Amino acid sequence: MSEFLRFVSHQIEDFAMQVTFNPVEGTGTVVYNLSLVRVEDLEQTISVFRATCEAGVSPSSLIRILYAGEELDGFVIPQNFCGILTLCSTTLDGLLLQRGIPSNPIGGGVIEVAENIPKRFTHLIKYEYTTIDPLQVLVSQEITSVHQVMKHGNGSILGNIRECHMEAEDDVEEVLDELTEGYFTGILDLGLPNTPCLGVAVDPQYMGLAALGGTNWMAALREEGISVTMQAMKGLCDISTMEFVSQL
Amino acid sequence: MSEFLRFVSHQIEDFAMQVTFNPVEGTGTVVYNLSLVRVEDLEQTISVFRATCEAGVSPSSLIRILYAGEELDGFVIPQNFCGILTLCSTTLDGLLLQRGIPSNPIGGGVIEVAENIPKRFTHLIKYEYTTIDPLQVLVSQEITSVHQVMKHGNGSILGNIRECHMEAEDDVEEVLDELTEGYFTGILDLGLPNTPCLGVAVDPQYMGLAALGGTNWMAALREEGISVTMQAMKGLCDISTMEFVSQL
Repeated sequence: MSEFLRFVSHQIEDFAMQVTFNPVEGTGTVVYNLSLVRVEDLEQTISVFRATCEAGVSPSSLIRILYAGEELDGFVIPQNFCGILTLCSTTLDGLLLQRGIPSNPIGGGVIEVAENIPKRFTHLIKYEYTTIDPLQVLVSQEITSVHQVMKHGNGSILGNIRECHMEAEDDVEEVLDELTEGYFTGILDLGLPNTPCLGVAVDPQYMGLAALGGTNWMAALREEGISVTMQAMKGLCDISTMEFVSQL
Repeated sequence: MSEFLRFVSHQIEDFAMQVTFNPVEGTGTVVYNLSLVRVEDLEQTISVFRATCEAGVSPSSLIRILYAGEELDGFVIPQNFCGILTLCSTTLDGLLLQRGIPSNPIGGGVIEVAENIPKRFTHLIKYEYTTIDPLQVLVSQEITSVHQVMKHGNGSILGNIRECHMEAEDDVEEVLDELTEGYFTGILDLGLPNTPCLGVAVDPQYMGLAALGGTNWMAALREEGISVTMQAMKGLCDISTMEFVSQL
């Protein structure tokens, strides 16, 4: 449509098609988000990230820390900053594509949680109609309450949703079973065919699949007043270059 | 489509239909954005706002300042903060609707400016597919260079675009003529029918109309390191309750 504008749905496809992640073996290529925090905030950053993983609001506890001067995909970490690589949930879309499951990324937004149950999207930006990642912009809007969700099971977190063809239901469930092992968890809801998933409509013959945003720990960090800048879907890396935060 | 989600295109219509603004007489109801700055930043805030008006990157120099404790539409300005009311460009959509010009808000985004000429949108979020205002989220993304545009005529500013029916071209031009008087200026480009406007495609029989975002002064303020939070399309007020920044 518009000559120069690259919408996020296409950026997701670009990355998804390069994912070779095998969730059973814990090998292959995954998509990462890159965040920058000040060096003096590193310790608190890791502690917040760990807490979000333990509370189940981060989809993966894999992390990699880069220090000032280190380079990754042509980007050099600036002086006085640390780079934090964490898993981007586009990795899940890559996995679906890899298995031949027809799926369309729908969008990212804010999900209301009540008594630890994800209830519905209260905000949504659709991938096909934005050139900037929804969760990247929403993380700075002070509309989450990740700490409340972690402490009391009530509040708002970031999440995303895609739809999968209903005839591929068995394959989807196979993928989800493999994911419970811990490299990438964070599936919030698999909707019924032809039925809204967490309040978001799906196309005929499709079912919604909602997952935790990889950005919830940054929202939690901001809620604590710590400054963090991030780029969603910054690049691809081999999962072996990352480690579980519990092993740090 | 989705039961609980209210997309911005509908929020725009809600407000636009209540606009009674008469740009020749400078009377009637307009849509405002509300920003909050710390009291100690008020002086610099006004000076930045004034500079953006003089440089032509703010669509209107009308402003109203609210102090801690003052209430507007049920919102009370918190302690240690000032509220800044400025014109929202939804006022323009209201004006088009008032005149019976068929128009559809398309979206908000980032516009590249070269030698003082707006060239093209480099980012866009479409109103119909987001529940949160595009410019409200983009203002915090560090992707503008409003000061560079003001100083050197090159950089990136925030803007929005709607499409108007080509058969209403005369009416659109009449509105634009009336707007040159100064209550609300900031039209960036009126495209040709059936032709992309600043790189954004329009529907058949429509022409694009791009305008400056009312949020450029906030982007400029953030570029100076001053913290500002804002709510786009916060409400409606009588234009007589605002004054030109030059008269402050």
